[in-house]
Amino acid sequence: MKEIDELIDVINETLRKCPWLKEQTIYSLKGEPLNEAREVKEAIENNDMDNFEEEIGDLIYDALLILAVAEKQGITNYHNVLKRVIEKIKRRKPWVFGDEKVSTAEEAARRWYEIKKEEKNHK
Amino acid sequence: MKEIDELIDVINETLRKCPWLKEQTIYSLKGEPLNEAREVKEAIENNDMDNFEEEIGDLIYDALLILAVAEKQGITNYHNVLKRVIEKIKRRKPWVFGDEKVSTAEEAARRWYEIKKEEKNHK
Repeated sequence: MKEIDELIDVINETLRKCPWLKEQTIYSLKGEPLNEAREVKEAIENNDMDNFEEEIGDLIYDALLILAVAEKQGITNYHNVLKRVIEKIKRRKPWVFGDEKVSTAEEAARRWYEIKKEEKNHK
Repeated sequence: MKEIDELIDVINETLRKCPWLKEQTIYSLKGEPLNEAREVKEAIENNDMDNFEEEIGDLIYDALLILAVAEKQGITNYHNVLKRVIEKIKRRKPWVFGDEKVSTAEEAARRWYEIKKEEKNHK
């Protein structure tokens, strides 16, 4: 997906060259994704799809930005974060990525909750 | 960034094969990014970096998922969303992507607000 690569390049360029962003930490930015996620929800509730298109982009940007800042702080990195979420989705949806069979939405939701609960219990 | 491409593949596979997800719309999913963004903020506030690594991945997943569902509903698409946010960042940070000069974080923040305000006024 070349557009995502371009967005990541833009983020990295901004992190190198913007004096404001150079001073930020994940702590100073911690509320930003929440603000954008709220605007995404409001755009959907208002059925304003032009605004949704803008706000969902802002949310993706803010999530990737805070991850880039975390990477700069040596906390984690893209690879670990994305590997971890991909593995989690695959574990929690064995009817998509494994041999399990489910036939309804309700059954899928129920199995997802069961697997999630089992994982939390084994932590 | 091959991990992002893999995550997008996983999302598309899930959209095709998970009976629960097949029934979802951006409306039914509208609160999900907000929940994840709240968990990202809490992880940072609790200084729980293992949890941050998990929650920031969940947030990126949820943001990309809701965009994939929007795309399926014919509302918008990755290309338009990412192009739009990239252009916005470039317009609003001319000291990174243009000829403008700023020397402090405060000046950068002030110029960013000014450009944002001008854009809103011209809408």
